[in-house]
Amino acid sequence: MEVHQVVPPPHMSTFNKLKNRFKETFFPDDPLRQFKGKSTKTKWILGAQYIFPILQWGPNYDLKLLKSDIVSGLTIASLAIPQGISYAKLASLPPIVGLYSSFVPPLIYAVLGSSRDLAVGPVSIASLIMGSMLRQEVSPATDPLLFLQLAFSSTFFAGLFQASLGFLRLGFIIDFLSKATLIGFMAGAAIIVSLQQLKSLLGITNFTNQMGIVPVLSSVFHRTNEWSWQTILMGFSFLAFLLLTRHIGIKKPKLFWVSAGAPLVSVILATLVVFASKAQHHGISVIGKLQEGLNPPSWNMLHFHGSHLGLVMKTGLITGIVSLTEGIAVGRTFAALKNYQVDGNKEMIAIGVMNIVGSSTSCYVTTGAFSRSAVNHNAGCKTAASNIIMAVTLMVTLLFLMPLFQYTPNVILGAIIVTAVVGLIDIPAAYQTWKVDKFDFIVLLCAFLGVLFISVQGGLAIAVGISIFKVLLQITRPKTVMLGNIPGTDIYRNLHQYKDAVRIPGFLILSIEAPINFANTTYLKERITRWTEDYEAEVEKTKKQSGLRFLVIDLSAVSAIDTSGISFFKELRMVLEKKGIEASQQQLQR
Amino acid sequence: MEVHQVVPPPHMSTFNKLKNRFKETFFPDDPLRQFKGKSTKTKWILGAQYIFPILQWGPNYDLKLLKSDIVSGLTIASLAIPQGISYAKLASLPPIVGLYSSFVPPLIYAVLGSSRDLAVGPVSIASLIMGSMLRQEVSPATDPLLFLQLAFSSTFFAGLFQASLGFLRLGFIIDFLSKATLIGFMAGAAIIVSLQQLKSLLGITNFTNQMGIVPVLSSVFHRTNEWSWQTILMGFSFLAFLLLTRHIGIKKPKLFWVSAGAPLVSVILATLVVFASKAQHHGISVIGKLQEGLNPPSWNMLHFHGSHLGLVMKTGLITGIVSLTEGIAVGRTFAALKNYQVDGNKEMIAIGVMNIVGSSTSCYVTTGAFSRSAVNHNAGCKTAASNIIMAVTLMVTLLFLMPLFQYTPNVILGAIIVTAVVGLIDIPAAYQTWKVDKFDFIVLLCAFLGVLFISVQGGLAIAVGISIFKVLLQITRPKTVMLGNIPGTDIYRNLHQYKDAVRIPGFLILSIEAPINFANTTYLKERITRWTEDYEAEVEKTKKQSGLRFLVIDLSAVSAIDTSGISFFKELRMVLEKKGIEASQQQLQR
Repeated sequence: MEVHQVVPPPHMSTFNKLKNRFKETFFPDDPLRQFKGKSTKTKWILGAQYIFPILQWGPNYDLKLLKSDIVSGLTIASLAIPQGISYAKLASLPPIVGLYSSFVPPLIYAVLGSSRDLAVGPVSIASLIMGSMLRQEVSPATDPLLFLQLAFSSTFFAGLFQASLGFLRLGFIIDFLSKATLIGFMAGAAIIVSLQQLKSLLGITNFTNQMGIVPVLSSVFHRTNEWSWQTILMGFSFLAFLLLTRHIGIKKPKLFWVSAGAPLVSVILATLVVFASKAQHHGISVIGKLQEGLNPPSWNMLHFHGSHLGLVMKTGLITGIVSLTEGIAVGRTFAALKNYQVDGNKEMIAIGVMNIVGSSTSCYVTTGAFSRSAVNHNAGCKTAASNIIMAVTLMVTLLFLMPLFQYTPNVILGAIIVTAVVGLIDIPAAYQTWKVDKFDFIVLLCAFLGVLFISVQGGLAIAVGISIFKVLLQITRPKTVMLGNIPGTDIYRNLHQYKDAVRIPGFLILSIEAPINFANTTYLKERITRWTEDYEAEVEKTKKQSGLRFLVIDLSAVSAIDTSGISFFKELRMVLEKKGIEASQQQLQR
Repeated sequence: MEVHQVVPPPHMSTFNKLKNRFKETFFPDDPLRQFKGKSTKTKWILGAQYIFPILQWGPNYDLKLLKSDIVSGLTIASLAIPQGISYAKLASLPPIVGLYSSFVPPLIYAVLGSSRDLAVGPVSIASLIMGSMLRQEVSPATDPLLFLQLAFSSTFFAGLFQASLGFLRLGFIIDFLSKATLIGFMAGAAIIVSLQQLKSLLGITNFTNQMGIVPVLSSVFHRTNEWSWQTILMGFSFLAFLLLTRHIGIKKPKLFWVSAGAPLVSVILATLVVFASKAQHHGISVIGKLQEGLNPPSWNMLHFHGSHLGLVMKTGLITGIVSLTEGIAVGRTFAALKNYQVDGNKEMIAIGVMNIVGSSTSCYVTTGAFSRSAVNHNAGCKTAASNIIMAVTLMVTLLFLMPLFQYTPNVILGAIIVTAVVGLIDIPAAYQTWKVDKFDFIVLLCAFLGVLFISVQGGLAIAVGISIFKVLLQITRPKTVMLGNIPGTDIYRNLHQYKDAVRIPGFLILSIEAPINFANTTYLKERITRWTEDYEAEVEKTKKQSGLRFLVIDLSAVSAIDTSGISFFKELRMVLEKKGIEASQQQLQR
């Protein structure tokens, strides 16, 4: 057999090593690459384009693109108006805040964002979490102004946190929300949100403030005397209509406009029905008067001290992470479909700045929404200009059309929310997870049940904790497998998987399948001792093989060894030598 | 080339898979192995021996073993008496509690423990942490009874926590205190402890209660008027004597009795000097009257409710983990030297039960001490009976010799503590860490500086946090390396390390060196995109190679792929196909 020499890698100073490591950790995408070898002027232009992506696509913008963006912008606006009002109610905020939040943030995002498909505005999950967390300390019914102030302050902290993650290149933190976690979490949140809508769908006036499945259901069935048949009739008719159009939209993506337009059509229809029949006097509750005009400033409403600061920061942190996860995932999904790049850290800065500005212009937390971005994409949006079109439409609405919503019944908002969140329950994905990886399914289930029976943020925390625990477990309990020789070759393979591989008498060949570090040296010591003892016990029993003389450890799959790992090898050699076994570590011909 | 077939591993049901995984995770040492195929009676005997290791070695105990154990037991008793008094003072507890804690726990350990070398009793680090944590809420000077109650309660929770870790087979939690963390933490704690001793060594009466390096030094230099030259003279003479004997003990292990006996000799000498010169009236503070008699019961002093419960549980948790780490590490070290096995989880139960019993018999937290176990080992101990001998000696002391300590000066206790903790500063090990792994050294430094400038528990938390962060980083940022073919073979190697490996035109061969899971799929996608872009940029620049046509990913070092990992491969294939690159994943001939 020919021998190939391993040369040590080129020498690097400690500083350079740390620099390299730092770069790989925080700048894996090497954002400065494009600046290399360019003139100063080009560098400035590239720099400005890097910070404001609008400068990249803006100069080449033409009528054809505009036409596409107008169509998609109007479509998402027709969705954004009813959803904005509905989601604000989900967060226990005045409905108009939902509309404000669909006006300023899209404009900011259009300038800073690098996704061409993201439709920005309030989203269900973040609204749900913000509402349920703030309600722990302040009641929106008895102290609406304070509640609003806390919501804006939380939004500010959410934005600050999101932008910092981007600036500090710590975007990988959101990677710890695994796919399984998200599937379970979303499904649980969707059920919680839907159950909450029973309040408006059944017309109950005295409803629990809690989010758990138990208090909500008890509220529903202990208040049967408050059920209003007019509300129920109207609610479930429109719910059926919305679900049907949603189904059509999914089955035939070309008919996206059916599902996209349905909420606005429902709102108009329901409003007309109420207006014509004066149903507000017959047990159907309506939104009521909404103030006309654009977003009022709200920077004087931000709380940076006082007794609720802790709650506000915590709420900001959690809604910030959750909405960031949704926004980034949506951006990446559609970027992959259209084959362009979305820079995660840059997106975080864009979303963060958008929320910081939003918090001082009466907006609550916003991000790129799954459902609206899909509609945007299907409607043929070409650039972030579709967000500008949407914002302009919202502006017109805020300035002139507010009186129209006076008679909009709350029940229709409930139906819109249920239709929107029902899509978050992804049973095929859950089944797929079960089939592929049982442990991932357990994570999924914990997130789901945690959200249902503990709390929205509790379920999330549990699922993230289990996911990280699983990763740490893989490290603390690395697999060790026994290898055997394939006769006639010098190749060694897993005895468990290769039928023709055979053991070599006197040799125990083990492969360790993880980096060796402080977290697993103790385990490896115990496990290897057990391997050798098992081997010797077998020798004693069968009397066929010769005793154990050599232990060979294959390190092909060991990518790193730390100082504890080095001590581990020293100690292992010592222990084995006392037993009369020779130990060698090497990379085998695999 | 011959083809060897991979057969799928034998089919296992989901339940069996989970069972196997569970066993590998929590029972890697397979404790029930020895019970297999034995008669019921033998099983009972083995079971009793498993729970009470004393039944294993007790029946074979003989006079020769006893002789060895008496020598070593008396030796460690001579060390345990002065150290017990000193460490109790370190925890701001009455000196006698240190003696109580060297009487009951060793007896319990002798019955339950599986190490033959562990010398059980109070230790410096755990004493330091307990004292400094409890002082945050209660002053031992103004409310000594409450302080004592909290100390016993913390001990109870420490024991409960330790025993639970053992019962639940979660012992691997202490593995997260890496070697580097411990080196830094110990050194920092040793300096903090030594600085605290300046109070008694300089004879200062009004000393700060804080532990940080800054308040302590300012206390020292703002109180120069309180320095007492008699105390300083006595203190530093004995300190020099103790350090000298310690040095002799290290250089010549056969003269272990010199260093082992020195503390007791110092105490006797110092006490005689004070008694003869009536120095207690000339600025030298003494211990004062100590109560005669064995441990009084203290179960009625345990607090399970009230305002300090949180602090007590936290203190129990931290002192529990730290003392467990020391005890297990000491046990394993000497077991490896004498080539016998110590079962980590069983040891945890033993140490835990010892502390639970201790907490109701006026003992504070105890474990196996580094320094005393080394003396025990050098003195030739054979079984845990040396702990019984030590306990009996302590009993005699408690019953009859207490009046002798009345004139023992506090300064000598300070000197004993400094001598004991100086050995915890392991500069060669720190240097070795720097040479081997810079990141581990950073962890070490953080633990060290955190202890010095933040707090003992703060430094520990920071270091553990960084260690875990490092492990997670290895997973979130797995190495990807480019492989090349070694001409004339079908072997592929790291291009960076094998000079004779060459690239194959049109092929990009990458090896991923970590399990692929939710935490790194995003990174891998970005990184692999960069690899392909780099490749294409190079092709453009040199015009020598042909364009990229195939991407081959070597998964030899990938031991696990979760559901996110599977989506990653699907998405990667989609992205690459759009670029006209073919992707294949395989295990290469390495």
